[in-house]
Amino acid sequence: MENSIPLPTKDWPKLEKGWVWLCGAGPGDPGLLTLHALNGLMQANVIVYDALVQNKILDWANPNAKLIFAGKRGGKPSPKQRDISLQLIELARNGKRVLRLKGGDPFVFGRGGEEAQTLVQNNIPIRIIPGISAGIGGLAYAGIPVTHRDVNQSVTFVTGHDQNGETPHSLNWSAISQGSQVLVIYMGMKHAKKIAHELILAGRSPNEPVAIVSNATTETQTVLETTLKMMNGDIIKSGIKPPAIICIGKAVLMRQVLNWQDFMNGGSPKNTDPLNRDFLTEVS
Amino acid sequence: MENSIPLPTKDWPKLEKGWVWLCGAGPGDPGLLTLHALNGLMQANVIVYDALVQNKILDWANPNAKLIFAGKRGGKPSPKQRDISLQLIELARNGKRVLRLKGGDPFVFGRGGEEAQTLVQNNIPIRIIPGISAGIGGLAYAGIPVTHRDVNQSVTFVTGHDQNGETPHSLNWSAISQGSQVLVIYMGMKHAKKIAHELILAGRSPNEPVAIVSNATTETQTVLETTLKMMNGDIIKSGIKPPAIICIGKAVLMRQVLNWQDFMNGGSPKNTDPLNRDFLTEVS
Repeated sequence: MENSIPLPTKDWPKLEKGWVWLCGAGPGDPGLLTLHALNGLMQANVIVYDALVQNKILDWANPNAKLIFAGKRGGKPSPKQRDISLQLIELARNGKRVLRLKGGDPFVFGRGGEEAQTLVQNNIPIRIIPGISAGIGGLAYAGIPVTHRDVNQSVTFVTGHDQNGETPHSLNWSAISQGSQVLVIYMGMKHAKKIAHELILAGRSPNEPVAIVSNATTETQTVLETTLKMMNGDIIKSGIKPPAIICIGKAVLMRQVLNWQDFMNGGSPKNTDPLNRDFLTEVS
Repeated sequence: MENSIPLPTKDWPKLEKGWVWLCGAGPGDPGLLTLHALNGLMQANVIVYDALVQNKILDWANPNAKLIFAGKRGGKPSPKQRDISLQLIELARNGKRVLRLKGGDPFVFGRGGEEAQTLVQNNIPIRIIPGISAGIGGLAYAGIPVTHRDVNQSVTFVTGHDQNGETPHSLNWSAISQGSQVLVIYMGMKHAKKIAHELILAGRSPNEPVAIVSNATTETQTVLETTLKMMNGDIIKSGIKPPAIICIGKAVLMRQVLNWQDFMNGGSPKNTDPLNRDFLTEVS
């Protein structure tokens, strides 16, 4: 495959001076960047980026752009949120073309809503560029569909910790447990034990399948398959580390057929049916 | 802004003969396509696409590619799912480089999991390319963040109808209602009355804010703001049509500040705080 492809013709939006584009960089794989994000990268003269944004993506920035690291990591208090917002406001007021680049999607547990609100309330015009969220795209890279007709008609995304690093008190685990067959937990590693306990207490089976996908979509992606009961012990034993997405529910079983990264590495498709569906299992 | 941008250098994956790439096209705006999707469009010699995929995106296909429409629309029975799967299998077996292009994300209420499973079980190697889902990115284009620290620590995505066009019987509206402060309903227009009824019955306020975003991210995007109680009547009165995403919860109020498309059209940022937050509302 050739190394370079011309981007298609289109009237791409212009990143004007004094504006901030709040942009999702996706879960990691640079190929999951959107065209709007790339357009922003090439125009910004300042890029304020998070810890989860891959260097390969930053390599595509305008060579004259100033790159500012605004690292925060999950599970820890974030005293710097105010500083980041102040910095964005100052940059915009100084007439910069600012790209605020966040891992995943800016509006999915990324405090992007707050940042955007603060900017607007301080008279800074913004544009929002959605990104692929790890809870959907990252799980897809592990062969896990967050919805499947035979598994679930709803899916719940939960954050495993609040701004103080604690499991949010407002979470109604009992309702969450009964509301969706598939649960996707962001930043849940630190409180995996408590989360498993709450879900089992609420009636989920201790043997329910769980997958933990660490560094999803990157070259260091790791997948741990376990159960609700074994989850915390297996996390410790395996040494798997954040950033990670925890998926709970039968969707995890689909990985037995849909682990497509295995095909990319020479593995063969398998004719197994993890859900014992009666639907076109073989066509000759 | 110039019309054409060179796509960055990278070892782009090759779409091999006999493979099917199951790819999300995002909610509509061609700028929300991923780089992997564009790479697929340029290599595929057959593209099987859904009704929700915009023509502007198909314009970027390899000029030699054969385009096959596999339209299905929400709310109707889908007798053709089997035919689509059979067709994909046949194309792959004939050595085509097949791109299966679906609106949104293939694994979010798109039956992509089933399609992928059927392909794999018939020995066809696949790759999954996630896309921006309308329930996240489409709402962002209406200025609605599906999560916000002051609103919710969980969000539930629900499909408003099953394969028979009915509201799925498996949905536990009471638990869903109590599990997440923000609910995002896909394909819920047809059963809006029933959904509102169930949620109010389960204890959600009749006055709870609701936004309905039709044709999200496209040039014909329409947003209807209403309440749970008024939702069904307002849908009928306004004539708003599917495809649409329904968002229920306080997140909808954020639109008063975050409706960034208004800035693109010359509107000014406003210093209002829909949630009455006490957080950096003004920085001088």
